[in-house]
Amino acid sequence: MTAPLVRLEDEGAVARLVLDRPERGHAWLRSMWGEAAALVGELAAREDVRALVLDSTGDRVFSGGADLDELQSLREDRGALLALAEDAEHFSAALESAPQVTIAAMTGSALGAGFLIAAACDVRVLSADARVGVPAAQLGLVLSRPDVARVVRVAGPALAAELLLCARVLSAGEALDHGLVSRVEAPGSVRERAAELASAAAQLSPRSVREMKRHLHAVSPRWDDLHAELAPSLDGLAADDLGARIAARRRGD
Amino acid sequence: MTAPLVRLEDEGAVARLVLDRPERGHAWLRSMWGEAAALVGELAAREDVRALVLDSTGDRVFSGGADLDELQSLREDRGALLALAEDAEHFSAALESAPQVTIAAMTGSALGAGFLIAAACDVRVLSADARVGVPAAQLGLVLSRPDVARVVRVAGPALAAELLLCARVLSAGEALDHGLVSRVEAPGSVRERAAELASAAAQLSPRSVREMKRHLHAVSPRWDDLHAELAPSLDGLAADDLGARIAARRRGD
Amino acid sequence: MTAPLVRLEDEGAVARLVLDRPERGHAWLRSMWGEAAALVGELAAREDVRALVLDSTGDRVFSGGADLDELQSLREDRGALLALAEDAEHFSAALESAPQVTIAAMTGSALGAGFLIAAACDVRVLSADARVGVPAAQLGLVLSRPDVARVVRVAGPALAAELLLCARVLSAGEALDHGLVSRVEAPGSVRERAAELASAAAQLSPRSVREMKRHLHAVSPRWDDLHAELAPSLDGLAADDLGARIAARRRGD
Repeated sequence: MTAPLVRLEDEGAVARLVLDRPERGHAWLRSMWGEAAALVGELAAREDVRALVLDSTGDRVFSGGADLDELQSLREDRGALLALAEDAEHFSAALESAPQVTIAAMTGSALGAGFLIAAACDVRVLSADARVGVPAAQLGLVLSRPDVARVVRVAGPALAAELLLCARVLSAGEALDHGLVSRVEAPGSVRERAAELASAAAQLSPRSVREMKRHLHAVSPRWDDLHAELAPSLDGLAADDLGARIAARRRGD
Repeated sequence: MTAPLVRLEDEGAVARLVLDRPERGHAWLRSMWGEAAALVGELAAREDVRALVLDSTGDRVFSGGADLDELQSLREDRGALLALAEDAEHFSAALESAPQVTIAAMTGSALGAGFLIAAACDVRVLSADARVGVPAAQLGLVLSRPDVARVVRVAGPALAAELLLCARVLSAGEALDHGLVSRVEAPGSVRERAAELASAAAQLSPRSVREMKRHLHAVSPRWDDLHAELAPSLDGLAADDLGARIAARRRGD
Repeated sequence: MTAPLVRLEDEGAVARLVLDRPERGHAWLRSMWGEAAALVGELAAREDVRALVLDSTGDRVFSGGADLDELQSLREDRGALLALAEDAEHFSAALESAPQVTIAAMTGSALGAGFLIAAACDVRVLSADARVGVPAAQLGLVLSRPDVARVVRVAGPALAAELLLCARVLSAGEALDHGLVSRVEAPGSVRERAAELASAAAQLSPRSVREMKRHLHAVSPRWDDLHAELAPSLDGLAADDLGARIAARRRGD
């Protein structure tokens, strides 16, 4: 039995959800989404757990996007692509509805899905040498509408347009200036700061956190119906030029 | 007869609503909400009044939150708590629907309800030595959904999450950088700048101001139905640990 | 036959829509709105065109507002005013629904309608010596609700209130700090930077751009029904004091 690619470390009032696929830049396989969603889902009833830190092993990359090899292999299997999209959405939605304060410890760059899961957290701490963005349009990928709402929530509508429609990637300093992350820390200090924030959050009233988090999501940009507008995403994944665009990116075109 | 704790000073085209409870940091008693709402409500028909400055006496604190002693004394009287929540909402809603340009002269720190009423104004001027925030989760308080929408409106959804779920308090410089306030002035110059802005606003077309203010509220984050989601707030006020958390804050824990 | 005041320059994957009324600061005549809307509308079916740069001739002004002389002459013709408002809305809506990435090359100041059309673009590049704002309340004009939503989209609700209700005008540096524009360039370099961004955008997946742009507008502040709230705008245009306020502005009061 191999080590799981996503695991939950239970440390009393603060839990850590850890991605552990460093050799592939913590890229997401379809199976990981379901596992991550289930782990966060279990915390919904854990009143003793008051904060959740989203982390990954190593320091090079916080999390990459979807695993492109798997995406290509699933291209003609619309059922599998739909299941993947559903599982990914379940994970982000679980973070958003968790009664805990959720904190992304972004020890390295967060591009694509890696940024989207951070955007689903309540607070983001970013390493000063990291970059963030959602360059999906370079590959021909189409974010789901709920994920676009997440980008708008953290970047605002104007910058979100440039991130998504121009595939702009931001430095850590730019991300801080524009409010996409709360804190930028020196490389190596991200986990420490995230842990501090988590400890402080764990002292707050669970009722206040749980109920005001519900209010926040009710009044912020969001889109709850994944399926209403998912066809463009599935069409993008199935499109002929996906392979060509992935190959071009790998060649560095 | 004692001096009123909230009064309206009528100075021609510019009116001033002044909080006057400096010995308690301009903390809000239940009765003050209704009085303040009534005073602002009277301005709705005053076409000659074109700007309203929200101010308080002294320079130490712009306004604190709810009076905690009164809150504790009302803990078991759900009817009184509901009336308090309604009156507070009426005041903020009156500011938002006033045909005047509303300007908060934040001569000192604004925490909790003090920040929420400033957020209900159109423009905020803050003293450089002041701090702002809504650390309700330290006390176990739960903002109403309309108030959460106000925080999102001035802070954006991402920073609003940190303010509410981590009880983060911002310096004046941070508040300016993140757009929560329009201007930061040297201590002692806040009223002067607010008065300048009010005089300038009074030169503008009343029709333009009135109608565009309506449009602004229609297209910005908001939540009009106070009662739909008020139970968590009332439960928070009635909770057993409110007293313990208030005591802990006073001890400086 | 005179030269058109709005023209489309077709340069392969990147098109340019150019305003050409420099002697009047590129102020908008009623006829120009319809022409501009039609030109952008034609691009909806042009899959070969992937980016659209919105530009104007000269370097002094990107675009002013509506032509005030024409506005005054139409004051008593409510049908004409309604048609003008509809045509202006059609143009901005065409920019927002265009499948191309739209980039405003703001070579000079953009006040009033000039700012609103830039706000309807996906990306804004501004000259370092230019100013932006919507001082409609100085003239007694009332923006339509869809236009107010555009200001909120690029400025956020808090700053939008100050722009609209206090007629605040921002320097280029302020506009960049607050996220109203993506880039500020030295005067004379704006077109070059806009062209670079357009070329880069033209390399991205058309499907990704088209579909994510739809998602962005679905989850960002907007108001699709022009007519629902247009009466205040038409009343403002017809009001007695419009002429007096225009004259006062020209005298520099």
